[in-house]
This record gives sequence, structure tokens and C-alpha cells, in this order.
Amino acid sequence: MKLTILGCYSATPRTNTNPTAQVLEIRNHLFLIDCGEGTQVQLRRLKIKFSRIRHIFISHLHGDHFFGLVGLISTFRLLGREADLNIYGPKGIKKVITLQLKLGKSWTNYPLLFHELKSNRSQLIFEDEKITVHTIPLDHRIYTNGFLFKEKIGERKLNIDAVRKANVDMSYYQKIKQGSDVLNKKGDLIPNDELTFDPDPPKSYAFCSDTVYFKGYILLIKKVTVLYHESTFLKEHEYLCQRTKHCTATHAATIAKEAEVRKLILGHYSTRYKSIEYFKEEAQQVFDNVALADDGKIFDL
Amino acid sequence: MKLTILGCYSATPRTNTNPTAQVLEIRNHLFLIDCGEGTQVQLRRLKIKFSRIRHIFISHLHGDHFFGLVGLISTFRLLGREADLNIYGPKGIKKVITLQLKLGKSWTNYPLLFHELKSNRSQLIFEDEKITVHTIPLDHRIYTNGFLFKEKIGERKLNIDAVRKANVDMSYYQKIKQGSDVLNKKGDLIPNDELTFDPDPPKSYAFCSDTVYFKGYILLIKKVTVLYHESTFLKEHEYLCQRTKHCTATHAATIAKEAEVRKLILGHYSTRYKSIEYFKEEAQQVFDNVALADDGKIFDL
Repeated sequence: MKLTILGCYSATPRTNTNPTAQVLEIRNHLFLIDCGEGTQVQLRRLKIKFSRIRHIFISHLHGDHFFGLVGLISTFRLLGREADLNIYGPKGIKKVITLQLKLGKSWTNYPLLFHELKSNRSQLIFEDEKITVHTIPLDHRIYTNGFLFKEKIGERKLNIDAVRKANVDMSYYQKIKQGSDVLNKKGDLIPNDELTFDPDPPKSYAFCSDTVYFKGYILLIKKVTVLYHESTFLKEHEYLCQRTKHCTATHAATIAKEAEVRKLILGHYSTRYKSIEYFKEEAQQVFDNVALADDGKIFDL
Repeated sequence: MKLTILGCYSATPRTNTNPTAQVLEIRNHLFLIDCGEGTQVQLRRLKIKFSRIRHIFISHLHGDHFFGLVGLISTFRLLGREADLNIYGPKGIKKVITLQLKLGKSWTNYPLLFHELKSNRSQLIFEDEKITVHTIPLDHRIYTNGFLFKEKIGERKLNIDAVRKANVDMSYYQKIKQGSDVLNKKGDLIPNDELTFDPDPPKSYAFCSDTVYFKGYILLIKKVTVLYHESTFLKEHEYLCQRTKHCTATHAATIAKEAEVRKLILGHYSTRYKSIEYFKEEAQQVFDNVALADDGKIFDL
């Protein structure tokens, strides 16, 4: 699991800071999460093979999370994309994107599939044999979801020495990995646990931005491997949180602690602060394993 | 008259090239012409006081000319703008911008005034005491206008030595600048041409992008001081012009020559070429006074 931060600052794109966008690489997928203005340039700058992106998740329809989407969709067309592109986002996203493509007489040559969201309960929005993606309903000024990416438990790992010693035919290997007991060449039944190791524990990643502090989603993100959580403000500006529906670093850390996550990554910083290190210092007073997102930073998780 | 090129490359924003946007400073106005994705960052990078922009002219609704507009409008809101902002652009521009503001529940606090264009004839779209702005109907894949900015003839310049020598009272100075003959303190009528110099010749700037090569707008831009003209391709790719509705450098230079303009600035280059110098070399075979636009370049005209 690898996370590349394309942008993690709030409000407006600036010379040296980019609005929210990140790429999660998980089980051979390249998922784009949010797409502020300039995301396509950041994808190029960070040399991400963005033709591999087939699924884009948009948390909400504020500019700093989605004004770069229509440009990326258009660029895919100019680059001759043929593969499907799936867009998951709030109701209204289809209308606003298609209106722009229509006005420019620039409809995509590739299938552009919208999956509009409007539920206030967590939903399964993507699933394949290796992973699931659920929404995390958040509380912001407009309808907003976070996203929870979870690996499924993988196949058991073949203990190749044990398998050879037990004299099991190769044709059984797939069955063994799937957990079956099998017969060896002599006809003895060999229990699976003598032939395999446990699979790697499944990893999970929760993206939670933008939201005011509340406890409604703690159960959904319980014990995730990595939580990316917005922390727009420091505690000294907590009075701005209710009006703007954002969190402080303390809020984010409290969520991380109560959800018992493994690691917390902070982002969505207001640009009013001189250093983002303050966010880490504040959060670590509540929760220990804190990292700071920053534009261009890559986390190998 | 000063022209700042924010971006002048076609199609998609890239790491080192920006789509079309430029700022024309003329008679104390700061006009923004086109607004591709990333324009607001270029405005910051080039340290342009963009709160001074009160009029934005959008040639057409392809992404590389307008996907940055909604972000700039939103940023003006976040910066607490109070002054009117006037947007001149093709019919449909109001709907697509307001839909995005509505979905984000982020309506501007300042007056946002749309002036939608749909005529295929040149129209006067802005006028004050010092300048006029007319549309230049172009021929592109979708409805497109160039824009012609013209200074009005200014006041005559006071010849202060002559005025003093003629013993004319100061209260007549404004009348003199407006061209009147006036009485001196002795009661003699002094002819205006003895008291003044001619005003500076009015300057004009024509922006023509995007368009296929045709002669329909040559009369409109006759003898302008500066013509910015698109030259997406070199002659070797002229076969692409009809389908994409673009020009070569030769086309642009031919227009400049036939319109007898003072200076030609080329831009809207395809990114397929290794050097933009090729455009200049090609154009100069037809028209002598050619300059190349480039991102960040400033022309004092």
C-alpha cells in the first residue's frame, strides 16, 4: 500500500501548495482521491502513470477538492484514453462535469461512468476480489464522504518446504493456498496448517476530509492501518471549527486514538500557519504515531 | 500598455507550460483574457495584484481557455473581494459557473456579472472614457471570439511653456487640453495648436485565439498596434488545421501582414515541438516584426 500526496492544503492553490488530491496504490489499483485544481500537473510532476487510474473518489464539491476533475477528464481524452473511468462523488457531479464537456463539444471517447452518492449511511461503493471501498459519511458544510479502502484477507501462503516434504502434487497448490486440506501422492490427507503460513494481515486506509469533529464515524474506521484526517486548524483557532466545519489537530488525534488506528496522517492545513510542524506537535499530545502529509510526499505503508 | 503572458500553450497544463491566460494593462485597467486551469497560481507567481482585475474576457469554452475561471472566482470570494467582477464569454458560461458555486454552496459575496455573447458579428462589449473593447468573431470548433482593445484618442498635451508665454489663466487648462482656443489675460484669442502638442497616438491590442485561418476578421484588426495570434502548428502540420480549426505560424503572419499590424505576438503552441523558435522563424518569412509569447513573459508595448 502506497500513498502519494499530490496536494494537502486547504482553500486555494498557491505557488507552493496544492489543494487536496492523493493517489492510493493498493493491490494493483491506482485510486485517485479528490482532485483540486492543478491535480493533473501534480500527477505529471510526480511521474505517476495516470493512465492507470480507473477510479476517482471525490469527497465533496468544494473547489479545493474537485475543480481539477474536469481538466483531468479532458486530458485523458486528449491522450487517447480508451479504458473506463469511474467517478464516485456527490449527486450533482455528473451534471456539472457533463455540462462542461457539452459546452466544449468535447465529450470523452472513453466510457465515463458516474456513481453518484447521496446516502448518509456508509455504503459499499466498490468491490473486487482483493479490496472493498466504503463511504464514510462526514459532517461538513455540504454533503461529504470520506472513503475507507480495505484489503480482503489474502490467500494463505504456501510453505514450499513443507509441501515438498509432504509429497503433495503441484496441481493442489492453488487449493492449498485457498485453505484446503489435500491428499499427498501416497493418499494421506495433509492438514492445511501443516502446509501454509498465515496470509499477510489485510491493510486498510481511511481518508477523512473535510469534516467537523464528531464521533459518528469512529466505528467505521476502527483499527484501520492508516487514517488520513484533516486538521485545518490548530487548537488556538478551534473557535473557527463549528462555522467552517473543520477540525483541529487535536480533534484528528482524538479520533485516531478512539478509533485505535495504527497511524495517523494529518493534512488539509490552513495556509495561515508558518510551519506544519505545529500540527504534529499538537496531535502528538493525544496520539503518538502521527505523520504529516505534504505535497509530493510518498508514504510506503 | 503592458501584456503579461500567464500561459500560452495549447491543450493541457503541464509541468512547465500553462494553458491560455494573459493580463492586459491598459489605461489603468487590468483585463484578464482567458483563464485556463492554474491561472490563479500564475497570477500569484507573477505577483500580479489580481484584486485589481474587474473584467475577464473568455474567448471560448474549451478547457484550456476557461477551466481556471471557477477557481479564480472562488478564490476572490475567499480573499474577501467586494468589487464587481464582470465576465464576458459565450452563452452558457453563466450556467456552468453558477452551477458549480451552487453545488459548493459557495456563492460569491461580491457582485458577479455575466455578459453572455452569442452574436457572430463584432460587438462593442465594454466602453469607458478611455477605451473600448469589441469582440472579434473567430472560426473554431465551438463559438469563439477574439477581443479588440482600443484606446480612445486622449486629450491634447499642454505645451506648458507656450501657455505661460501666452499669459493664459490656469482655469483654462482643461479646456485647452480638450482642444479649445482660449482668451489670454489681455483678451486675445490664442489658437489651440499654439498651446498644445498632439496626444499620444492611441494604441490597440487584438487577441485572436483559437481560430482557423480565414480573412473575415482582417478589417476588424486593421493596423492594430499589437496582434496576439494563435499559431498552434508549424506549416508541416498544416493538414491538421481544418479538422482542429487552428492556424500555423504562416497563417498568423499572413493575417498580420494583410491587416498591416505593427507587431505580431505568437502563442497557443502545440507542445509537440522541441522549440518555439521554429514558430518565429516560420512567421518571419512572411512578416517581419514577430515576437514569441511565453509563460511569464511581459511585453511593454
